[in-house]
Amino acid sequence: MNRNKKYKSDIDIAQQVSLFPIKQLAENYLELNDDEFELFGKYKAKLSLQILERLKNKPSGKVVLVTSINPTPAGEGKSTVTVGLAQALNQLNKRAIVALREPSLGPTLGMKGGATGGGYSQVLPMDDINLHFTGDLHAITTANNALAAFIDNHIHQGNEVGIDPRRIIWKRVLDLNDRALRYITIGLGGPTHGVPREDHFDITVASEIMAILCLADSLADLRSRLAEVVIGYTYSNKPVTVADIGYEGALTLILKEAIKPNLVQTLEHTPAIIHGGPFANIAHGCNSLLATKMAAKLGDYVVTEAGFGADLGAEKFLNIKARIGKIHPSGVVIVATIRALKMHGGLKKNDLQQENTAALILGFSNLKKHIETIKSFGLPYVVAINKFITDTDKEIKTILDWCHDNSHPAALCEVWEHGGKGGIDLAKKLLKTIDEEQNQFKHLYDTASSIKQKIFNIANIVYGATGVQYTSKAEKQMNDFDQFGWSQLPICMAKTQYSLTDEAHVLGRPENFTITIREFKISLGAGFIVAITGNIMTMPGLPKKPAALSMDVNDEGLATGLF
Amino acid sequence: MNRNKKYKSDIDIAQQVSLFPIKQLAENYLELNDDEFELFGKYKAKLSLQILERLKNKPSGKVVLVTSINPTPAGEGKSTVTVGLAQALNQLNKRAIVALREPSLGPTLGMKGGATGGGYSQVLPMDDINLHFTGDLHAITTANNALAAFIDNHIHQGNEVGIDPRRIIWKRVLDLNDRALRYITIGLGGPTHGVPREDHFDITVASEIMAILCLADSLADLRSRLAEVVIGYTYSNKPVTVADIGYEGALTLILKEAIKPNLVQTLEHTPAIIHGGPFANIAHGCNSLLATKMAAKLGDYVVTEAGFGADLGAEKFLNIKARIGKIHPSGVVIVATIRALKMHGGLKKNDLQQENTAALILGFSNLKKHIETIKSFGLPYVVAINKFITDTDKEIKTILDWCHDNSHPAALCEVWEHGGKGGIDLAKKLLKTIDEEQNQFKHLYDTASSIKQKIFNIANIVYGATGVQYTSKAEKQMNDFDQFGWSQLPICMAKTQYSLTDEAHVLGRPENFTITIREFKISLGAGFIVAITGNIMTMPGLPKKPAALSMDVNDEGLATGLF
Repeated sequence: MNRNKKYKSDIDIAQQVSLFPIKQLAENYLELNDDEFELFGKYKAKLSLQILERLKNKPSGKVVLVTSINPTPAGEGKSTVTVGLAQALNQLNKRAIVALREPSLGPTLGMKGGATGGGYSQVLPMDDINLHFTGDLHAITTANNALAAFIDNHIHQGNEVGIDPRRIIWKRVLDLNDRALRYITIGLGGPTHGVPREDHFDITVASEIMAILCLADSLADLRSRLAEVVIGYTYSNKPVTVADIGYEGALTLILKEAIKPNLVQTLEHTPAIIHGGPFANIAHGCNSLLATKMAAKLGDYVVTEAGFGADLGAEKFLNIKARIGKIHPSGVVIVATIRALKMHGGLKKNDLQQENTAALILGFSNLKKHIETIKSFGLPYVVAINKFITDTDKEIKTILDWCHDNSHPAALCEVWEHGGKGGIDLAKKLLKTIDEEQNQFKHLYDTASSIKQKIFNIANIVYGATGVQYTSKAEKQMNDFDQFGWSQLPICMAKTQYSLTDEAHVLGRPENFTITIREFKISLGAGFIVAITGNIMTMPGLPKKPAALSMDVNDEGLATGLF
Repeated sequence: MNRNKKYKSDIDIAQQVSLFPIKQLAENYLELNDDEFELFGKYKAKLSLQILERLKNKPSGKVVLVTSINPTPAGEGKSTVTVGLAQALNQLNKRAIVALREPSLGPTLGMKGGATGGGYSQVLPMDDINLHFTGDLHAITTANNALAAFIDNHIHQGNEVGIDPRRIIWKRVLDLNDRALRYITIGLGGPTHGVPREDHFDITVASEIMAILCLADSLADLRSRLAEVVIGYTYSNKPVTVADIGYEGALTLILKEAIKPNLVQTLEHTPAIIHGGPFANIAHGCNSLLATKMAAKLGDYVVTEAGFGADLGAEKFLNIKARIGKIHPSGVVIVATIRALKMHGGLKKNDLQQENTAALILGFSNLKKHIETIKSFGLPYVVAINKFITDTDKEIKTILDWCHDNSHPAALCEVWEHGGKGGIDLAKKLLKTIDEEQNQFKHLYDTASSIKQKIFNIANIVYGATGVQYTSKAEKQMNDFDQFGWSQLPICMAKTQYSLTDEAHVLGRPENFTITIREFKISLGAGFIVAITGNIMTMPGLPKKPAALSMDVNDEGLATGLF
């Protein structure tokens, strides 16, 4: 994003900053006790869950959610705004902490562009965070695949529980983009090598264990959620859980360090808690509940983001995570860029360099829908216009005028180029909005409603759909789920992030459309029903020239070619 | 091993010890500078390769190799003796450091019994070390599987290099026991999901990247070894390397932290450097060269072990690792147990509880062969009789007498029950042997010899075989390897660990036998040719009741059921 010879690359900026020792940040700024954090090198630490216990009677800080319009290939910079806003709040002497998701290595090796912000609004050390960080994703991969091995071993060793190999829904995972593992057959080679069956690999962030880790509020809660995971069905079509085969203890053991949130810092030494990163389609797409809660106990403001646009990430943050975690957000920042709005207005990516206010104005419809969504949750909001160097003065004036004319609080945000200083205006507008606007936060559905009612509420209020259609498979699954007693769970919508509809190519603000639920997936451990529309890709592929081709380590042991 | 209600379990002993902060051990005992180590929690650290640069002119300490007779289900306790011996040397005011392999998680979840020593001779924190430790194995898994994804993506995106999908030798890996992944087909599902082909998963320790990491002497050497890895062959049967598809930089980046050795401590606070752990059949079976070299720079004595018995681990340590790393070992400890020797003498496992000196005496033949092997390398040695609580006084006297009568330096070793104190006699005998005995260390073959000559030397001198047979496949491969210019590499024998022959059930000291080389595998990055006899299992399976069934975490967050 925002690349130009005049500007330094993200990793060049990152490697020129003198970080504070994380110990100093933990002790002096967060006032943690010596036994409440563990160092992972000089600039990363794991935070003990004891912190929540010690501070249980302290009031929590204000939670600010950063979301965006529907993402486009033009780039929105939501993480950059999240980091920059927290830096700006700190410059205003507000005690702010960033809470973010952990990046997945697969996309990092595939496409240029990291998940640690950009320019002068980054979390650091960006190379560590984008590579193995403190090993949380590796622990999740290991737990996920250990469970898969336990399942196949159970069947191989006599299949006491009667698991139907054709009805196993638990998939293996790798934290890589590897399309060749999407459709595979395993257990070939004869009777000493397991039982043949079809299988699939997903990317690690799509594992239900990632979703569970991000919703658990303690080690005990983690264990009981893991116990409930449905791994498949018996020959007589009864659900089989992890508890039925007895491995919840071992899985909890494998995850006992991964459940602890990670502390790092931004370029301006604002504390950042980075923990967990579930997919925002088949899962809920936000950092861990423990990270958000811990940040709220340690700071006066938590600035956190949810994946994809407000129709997916924010909807799930507000309907699922906030419900489970009893979080009452104080305000929402909706990120938009002129480039992306021009795409929503009909421009192709190659035409974005040229000034085009007509396309921009057409694109406002997408932003407007997401503003309406946040209003329907009863929450105050500010629009953050994340400035790109190609934006023209006339385009900037056009969007600021539109926001003003429609009474949408808005600010131009230059945190990529100027760090926290570039977000002062946004921060001030946000503080004012939180102070002055009414906050009547509510969920958009009651979990006691029927599955169809819950889905209709989301599709209608958030997407603007007029109705929802169901395949016969989905209808049959709803019957089954009802019988198994699962109907009263929240719904996690798996929909393309690019459109408000279930068709990726429909940009802007579509009207008079229905969405189709093709099938459901039960995530009983995470505690939600996944409703799947369209083809959801849970194992990405690599492009023809992966970013990995330019990556290396220099003679000083520093990463090169990483963005 | 050695279990009895009177004795505490390994993890109970481990969790009752007050460890020194590893920072204290690094700074005060090893005299490291602040920028030469990075903490991973309070009791683990990664050591910078700068240490070797700073100490390059300091003479290296003495390297003591711990090996054993052919392993049996009775247990030998080689790691326990290694740890106990180092503790004993420290009690004698010798500055000793342990160098060990990192455990693999797969077997830990499968079978009871860890790889961190036992009783009062353990390296700690044993739960961390046996679980994710500092993430080295996860980094290797990731690099290995990233390369696999890059290969399949290269083919999918047009196959510029012309890789024959039927001739890919690079396998995927997981650090788990998962038999269902031994024989699989991938790339199914149609043209957007890759190219269909047969594939296999190995356990991570069988990855050539593990072997490379353990033989590289710097980051630059790591990169050039990764570049040389042969991943398969073209349609016209020419070797394809990582450099041909251009990913050596990215793989080096993924491994840039994993290459740094890890510092922990024993129960008695003896420093332990634990790093890398390649299989001892298709790879060379010892901890990293960097760990051994660093331990030798930081201590006066390094006590290190090699995998399996002396016919595999020690042979490869001495012919491969010592050659590549220019290590001149000072002495060898050969571990034997009365139980295991009784099995070599013909007893079944269930009969081991009963005193049986006749079987014991018959079993001496196996020990005698390994002593001869060490002598053929020109090295001084001591026999360590690792005492089990079931050993009778008469049995102990029988073996000590045999050693005495045959002039084999020997000591009874009680380090499991008594820690370093139980190894004082062994340590004294070792020091005396190193001081007094001639050391004329030599490799058993010249790398310039033919492949057949090198294999014959190993089979004849180490195994006692009268000849070597080759399948027609192996003969053809030797021709190919000759053409590709690979013939002058050292040989890595992949043979069953249980027998001196290539048949697992032949115990004791067989005579008048030949071994058969079924096929070869090139590990050009690691720098050796693997010669495979029999069926070598590179992906273990889980037993009917995996150890994982009893694992859990208690309310204090401590591991339970881990051994």
